Amino acid sequence: MIVLFGESIRFFDTTLRDGEQTPGVSLTPAGKLEIATHLADVGVHVIEAGSAAASVGERESIRSIADAGLAAECCTYVRALPGDIDLAADAGADSVHLVVPVSDLHIAKKLRKTREQVSQMAWSAVEYAKERGLIVEFSGEDASRADQDFLAEVFREGVERGADRLCFCDTVGLLTPERAAAIVPPLLFAPLSIHCHDDLGFGLATTVAALRAGATCAHVTVNGLGERAGNTSLEELVMALEVLYGVDTGIKTEELYPLSTHVARLTGVPLATNKPIVGEMAFTHESGIHAHGVMRDASTYEPLRPERVGRRRRIVLGKHSGSAAVEAALNDMGYAPDGTQLKEIVARIKRLGDAGMRITDADIMAIADTVMEIEFTPCIELRQFTIVSGSNAMPTASVTMLVRGDEITGAAVGTGPVDAAIRALQRSVADVGSVRLDEYSVDAITGGTDALVDVSVKLSRNGKTVTSRGARTDIIMASVEAVIAGMNRLLREEHEDRSQDSDRSAAA
Amino acid sequence: MIVLFGESIRFFDTTLRDGEQTPGVSLTPAGKLEIATHLADVGVHVIEAGSAAASVGERESIRSIADAGLAAECCTYVRALPGDIDLAADAGADSVHLVVPVSDLHIAKKLRKTREQVSQMAWSAVEYAKERGLIVEFSGEDASRADQDFLAEVFREGVERGADRLCFCDTVGLLTPERAAAIVPPLLFAPLSIHCHDDLGFGLATTVAALRAGATCAHVTVNGLGERAGNTSLEELVMALEVLYGVDTGIKTEELYPLSTHVARLTGVPLATNKPIVGEMAFTHESGIHAHGVMRDASTYEPLRPERVGRRRRIVLGKHSGSAAVEAALNDMGYAPDGTQLKEIVARIKRLGDAGMRITDADIMAIADTVMEIEFTPCIELRQFTIVSGSNAMPTASVTMLVRGDEITGAAVGTGPVDAAIRALQRSVADVGSVRLDEYSVDAITGGTDALVDVSVKLSRNGKTVTSRGARTDIIMASVEAVIAGMNRLLREEHEDRSQDSDRSAAA
Repeated sequence: MIVLFGESIRFFDTTLRDGEQTPGVSLTPAGKLEIATHLADVGVHVIEAGSAAASVGERESIRSIADAGLAAECCTYVRALPGDIDLAADAGADSVHLVVPVSDLHIAKKLRKTREQVSQMAWSAVEYAKERGLIVEFSGEDASRADQDFLAEVFREGVERGADRLCFCDTVGLLTPERAAAIVPPLLFAPLSIHCHDDLGFGLATTVAALRAGATCAHVTVNGLGERAGNTSLEELVMALEVLYGVDTGIKTEELYPLSTHVARLTGVPLATNKPIVGEMAFTHESGIHAHGVMRDASTYEPLRPERVGRRRRIVLGKHSGSAAVEAALNDMGYAPDGTQLKEIVARIKRLGDAGMRITDADIMAIADTVMEIEFTPCIELRQFTIVSGSNAMPTASVTMLVRGDEITGAAVGTGPVDAAIRALQRSVADVGSVRLDEYSVDAITGGTDALVDVSVKLSRNGKTVTSRGARTDIIMASVEAVIAGMNRLLREEHEDRSQDSDRSAAA
Repeated sequence: MIVLFGESIRFFDTTLRDGEQTPGVSLTPAGKLEIATHLADVGVHVIEAGSAAASVGERESIRSIADAGLAAECCTYVRALPGDIDLAADAGADSVHLVVPVSDLHIAKKLRKTREQVSQMAWSAVEYAKERGLIVEFSGEDASRADQDFLAEVFREGVERGADRLCFCDTVGLLTPERAAAIVPPLLFAPLSIHCHDDLGFGLATTVAALRAGATCAHVTVNGLGERAGNTSLEELVMALEVLYGVDTGIKTEELYPLSTHVARLTGVPLATNKPIVGEMAFTHESGIHAHGVMRDASTYEPLRPERVGRRRRIVLGKHSGSAAVEAALNDMGYAPDGTQLKEIVARIKRLGDAGMRITDADIMAIADTVMEIEFTPCIELRQFTIVSGSNAMPTASVTMLVRGDEITGAAVGTGPVDAAIRALQRSVADVGSVRLDEYSVDAITGGTDALVDVSVKLSRNGKTVTSRGARTDIIMASVEAVIAGMNRLLREEHEDRSQDSDRSAAA
């Protein structure tokens, strides 16, 4: 593979500035420091910690990141205003990302100034920032819509006045790879960064094109956070460079997934399930042909080993699953169907899929039991459950169940009615086995208070795990249904193991 | 802008085949027909309706789509097997997407065959499909890792044997725009489609590069659905071609957003909030500079008018909001702060943001009241609420509230405890005003049954709307909190209007 990149590429991460400007996202200073530390560990070169002029909390964050002794430059966003530069310097930043609008549209409509006025402000600000001892990355906002001759002049004189680096901002994502390749070379008065937005889905490709054309630094955010459609994603850029262009980026790629989930948790912005590299499904295989191929040789349907980005491969069953994947899953669950049975089980899974259902372990086991004529007496039968909750009442649940024929009633309180209900269930089966709730998740509820609520749980017991599901308009009912279905599967397996033990003792 | 595309571009939509292979996604035949109808209305040229060999439901879908008289070709996926081709023909498809692995990796590891065997199977299948009267799109799977001379030979002979069109599948997303540009020209024995996956974030850019190099049809899915990181997105490709490359695609772009939300609803795969074109945030502005710019001229921070894809612009407030956006919002809410008050309100919103909070209308009004020393006596004070629910009980809620000083107790049943609680609240305030719940949403819950539940509501009354929020570990408490906060804001405004009315009558 031909590497066309001039020198080693630097990563300027703006998750804490551009990323935090994602509407609805707001990080605490403590959260920002956590993310900055993780970013420095992963190996980014510059961390844009925030915008010193934005708020008091923002300045606190910048100060704490600057003082943390991280192995990355601490940068802050400033406008071409002495006041902004003072705040940045006083907060202890190493450098400023000094942003000046350069398109006539931004100059005239947003600032209501002239090119001349804006240039003079910008150059004075560069000089002032240098006087304050800051590294200056001098950045043209909306540069892709600017007169490129004017931009070159602003940049050239900016470097004369002391700017250490330059940055081309494609503020609304209008650049194409072809234009980036043409635009970059005339601007290389100093090391150039490229800052792309993904409004039209071209953020990553344009960033790579600019790097190939001579830019040496890429502005990125974790998970592609940022205003509107966000910025170029750190994890996508790193892996595209490594896998597609053979670049050794120096980034700890196996930390990319942990970093991504860390940022998703702190920002509250969930990852798209099909996001490249870090989405839940990025290394998950369902369809027959794909899963079959992956089982024979993972590279058939994987562009890179999931371990390389800190992940693991997952094979799930569904209507597109072929016999090979279903058989492997059944064997894991302790079933050994013959050819005819397997064919029938696959057919029934497909039928469930055709009906639009998501398929859990409990569903597959129920199908296998029926087809293989294995009698399945559920260990637990729910007789009743009752929930009382309110403003002046501890959320309280009682359940009555038949557990292997014995009627057991249990009660529990919890932090909410669902929590109380699940605790009551767990307590009631404690005598026959302690079942742990490893995961409890509810799909986002939209549409109204009478919308269908989809609850998924993962339960475990003695190292065995099982997934199950409940779907009702009532979140408590759905949760109880999911947990009981899973418990029945876990306790049943236990029961079988024990029968086998007694058989063995009898024979000995 | 120079248009380098040879002729008009065709869109081959595989949402119902590749898209439906997204793990966990399963559409009913009725859902598939709905989506196909929408796709044809939007203007795609080919609809890959499914894989006839996959299941009975799949064949039903294909049949119903083929029979619906849509203005799009009905295609189905087949392997190079006569049985698959028969199923496709019998289901009434117009065409087949006949897919044959062409990389040595796939040929050897997945199929355990030789190049010769695979080529012969493929060519015979082309002939057989032609005999059965089908249009044949002959497709090389994992073509980007294939020996390109072998691929050219397979394609050339395939066209000799009757293939109408060819397709290059970048099965695991390893193609770059540069390689696509080089690879396409030697393969143009017949009209060529390009089928890209987004594993490394290059699906869109590579698709465009291939179209510029002579391919005439793009395979896409709505919302970029598909295995792993998914396929090239229909909506992104259409808008990139229109906005960045000046192509008139002929697609009804204003239907792209409705189509996207339709597919998200039926597949259950939510849209990333920052997805280009269709994500919730794609046309939302929060930060001071951006919102300010957009209020002066929307094009400063928008790459295209949201109406062009069936959407609307949204400005939200948060810690990055500047005075201009806050003032506009306050005016909308009926507040007219002076300069000093506005400055203080902005500062307090930023403080709330620094603490990591999402900011709703109710928060902003509470801040404005305090700063402007407007006395705010909440119209409603909650005294108690109680919920009873269970397996043998209708979910039932009672609430006692002071509504403008009068103690009111109301009760209601609902489809679940949350529904019952909200109904009881609505009923209790009915005498002073009927408040409608327009939106109720809960962020996905992960982590456990004691995780914080974040409830957002939008209430309206007499054409006024207000958003508010509740966050508790208890979903019912959080819901009640959110609704009461919003009701207080709505009913208070009403109260004020009435005071003004009496003032006016007194003066007349």
